[in-house]
Amino acid sequence: MLKLGIVGLGTVGSSVVKILQENKEIIRARAGVEIVPAIGVARNLEKHKNLGIVLSDNVDDILEDESIDMVVELIGGVDRAYEIVKKALLKGKSVVTANKALLAYHRYELQEIANGQGFGFEASVAGGIPIIRSLREGLSANKILSIKGILNGTCNYMLTKMIDEGVSFGEVLKEAQELGYAEADPTFDVGGFDASHKLLILASIAYGIDAKPEDILIEGIEGINSDDIFFAKEFGYNIKLLAIAKQNNDKVELRVHPVLIKKEQMIAKVDGVMNGVSVIGDFVGETLYYGAGAGGDATASAVVSDIISIARGESTPMLGFKKLSTNELSLIEPDMIETEYYVRMSVIDEVGVLSKISSLFAKHDISIDSFLQKSSKNSGKTTLLFSTHKCQEKRIKEALKSIKELSFVQGAPSMIRIED
Amino acid sequence: MLKLGIVGLGTVGSSVVKILQENKEIIRARAGVEIVPAIGVARNLEKHKNLGIVLSDNVDDILEDESIDMVVELIGGVDRAYEIVKKALLKGKSVVTANKALLAYHRYELQEIANGQGFGFEASVAGGIPIIRSLREGLSANKILSIKGILNGTCNYMLTKMIDEGVSFGEVLKEAQELGYAEADPTFDVGGFDASHKLLILASIAYGIDAKPEDILIEGIEGINSDDIFFAKEFGYNIKLLAIAKQNNDKVELRVHPVLIKKEQMIAKVDGVMNGVSVIGDFVGETLYYGAGAGGDATASAVVSDIISIARGESTPMLGFKKLSTNELSLIEPDMIETEYYVRMSVIDEVGVLSKISSLFAKHDISIDSFLQKSSKNSGKTTLLFSTHKCQEKRIKEALKSIKELSFVQGAPSMIRIED
Repeated sequence: MLKLGIVGLGTVGSSVVKILQENKEIIRARAGVEIVPAIGVARNLEKHKNLGIVLSDNVDDILEDESIDMVVELIGGVDRAYEIVKKALLKGKSVVTANKALLAYHRYELQEIANGQGFGFEASVAGGIPIIRSLREGLSANKILSIKGILNGTCNYMLTKMIDEGVSFGEVLKEAQELGYAEADPTFDVGGFDASHKLLILASIAYGIDAKPEDILIEGIEGINSDDIFFAKEFGYNIKLLAIAKQNNDKVELRVHPVLIKKEQMIAKVDGVMNGVSVIGDFVGETLYYGAGAGGDATASAVVSDIISIARGESTPMLGFKKLSTNELSLIEPDMIETEYYVRMSVIDEVGVLSKISSLFAKHDISIDSFLQKSSKNSGKTTLLFSTHKCQEKRIKEALKSIKELSFVQGAPSMIRIED
Repeated sequence: MLKLGIVGLGTVGSSVVKILQENKEIIRARAGVEIVPAIGVARNLEKHKNLGIVLSDNVDDILEDESIDMVVELIGGVDRAYEIVKKALLKGKSVVTANKALLAYHRYELQEIANGQGFGFEASVAGGIPIIRSLREGLSANKILSIKGILNGTCNYMLTKMIDEGVSFGEVLKEAQELGYAEADPTFDVGGFDASHKLLILASIAYGIDAKPEDILIEGIEGINSDDIFFAKEFGYNIKLLAIAKQNNDKVELRVHPVLIKKEQMIAKVDGVMNGVSVIGDFVGETLYYGAGAGGDATASAVVSDIISIARGESTPMLGFKKLSTNELSLIEPDMIETEYYVRMSVIDEVGVLSKISSLFAKHDISIDSFLQKSSKNSGKTTLLFSTHKCQEKRIKEALKSIKELSFVQGAPSMIRIED
């Protein structure tokens, strides 16, 4: 018998208990041992009294109980979760967590403390999709060339609505909040921060690279408007918030931002609240993983699968590498990233505007791939939409800065990266 | 150091050696041990002399060598492979194989012989896609409600061409043979047999069910014609060869056949030679796995990932269940399957035909969902295309038999199942 202490009985915690109860027989057959949710710790015990497990409002009732084999941490947040998980490991208990923020900041310390003890975190990235296992075990023969993930269902839901139904960012945000897909303060989701936490976890498994959210390029979807969608449709693109990790020689680029991506790409077909991750390996080519990235039941499915794996005696190294990798990879400076760009600007409709902007692009050594002009009748203003060939991020930023200074340009020009 | 003996140096075997050589450093870091392809066994040694490993044409040089830790079986076929794998296990060596036919027939005996020794077979289903691991580990918390797989790239390539370009079955088969996607005798692929082997392996992991290819419903794509494609397009369907496993109460249905499936479904978006598997679990909902299902490098990626997992000390039970499952599931009789159907028939264009056929459907208690008529001008013949509501397979077969007897019906009517 394997005895669990569950810290946090919110949506995910309650689902974990429910799965362990409802699928008890099949889980016992698969794990080879009975798995028992022995104690649940929560603040409001009254609320959970029908859950069918012993309740406590004191986490020490789990940590100090030697009969508890495993701690399931589902309270979220960084500091308190870190203390609990660390203490559990030091007490010789294995740990399963769904906490992406904890891992975004402390995964390497925790790996060291765990030192081979069971530590599962499948639920921390893309909810029910077994992407951690796939990357760490299923693709372990490969050098990972790239990971491109739709890791935030809220953003994907909003972008799908904006593109399919022409709804504005503001309108769809309000709707997502009403549906419970978006928080009252949506910054963590729509600003790309949630996705960045998940990206860092995947990047550790693929590249053994230690980085924090502060180290990488993160942009949200707040700036996307109907002109961008018009351009995307015209040229066969979809717009997605992608979390991207790529290796180029001994450099790794990690970034989260909206992209224009060709509609035919499998990852571009992942719509609505669903998550998807495309991984390209040097031998396997592209594989893609799709499913529910959030929600109590889907996330709890991943938590319980981790519990079963530990019960089975799983021995895979937590972050995929048994020893520290010998090939030292380092992060690329965001300014050194090379990609294609889409640029939008609003200008006063006067003679010579296009020629001036074209020559400014040329001066920055940026070559234009396609161009669209969208006039608002009688307003005297027009919107110019460009896409460029591949160039360095630094150059596009300098060009946008120069463009902003031009007398006929209204407001700041904006850009979206294009992913091929 | 882990020493491998590789039996079979064809496309996959050569790729396995190549991966182990090219990705040596990263594999060592991930596995925690150096993995060395020590001996390769092949018939034509001359052909492989530049591979950089010791060669032999005698498999006993592997089996009788106590320094060899693991046997990688890549010769295919059932009987000889079974002998080699069995002998290797009895000698205490772990085994990795890509051999779907071997497992379709002998997986339960091999599990018993292996008795916890390392036995990897990720490459036997869907090439480079880690579907075995995902099902066995990533989704282990769930009762599996259904598996729907595009498991044969040849068929998927052909169907995609037929639908997108209007090419006939005969033409696209010829083209697939020229491209090397289809064998000179294509029956194993286009007849659905290849996919059935893979389905049986997945069904064992999901349901613990022991069945052989002979026990299940297998139909190929040979009968699909332009009328079927016309109907599919008209009603928003795609046509795919699906391998399907579903649990209904204590019955499991296993079947391989072409289906009409709504274009919006994620699995219906898997086109060309690619493979895809959609799995629905009771808590996780739908997850989908996509990638290359064949080819030396993609298949070898799965083989080497298995080797790494065994080197890491993997302890997951081979077929997913640590003990025999207590809930005994049995196969459903194909005649008892319930689904929706599409029916095509060619009739002489005369008064009262439609009413006679409609009443015949009604007599068999089959309710029509939609109907299309396609006349060939001046031929005096017309094609009738129906789709039905859900009914039992038995009833549709009886109805088709009765329809065939009608004087105005030309040849045998045909049907394709509709998957929702």
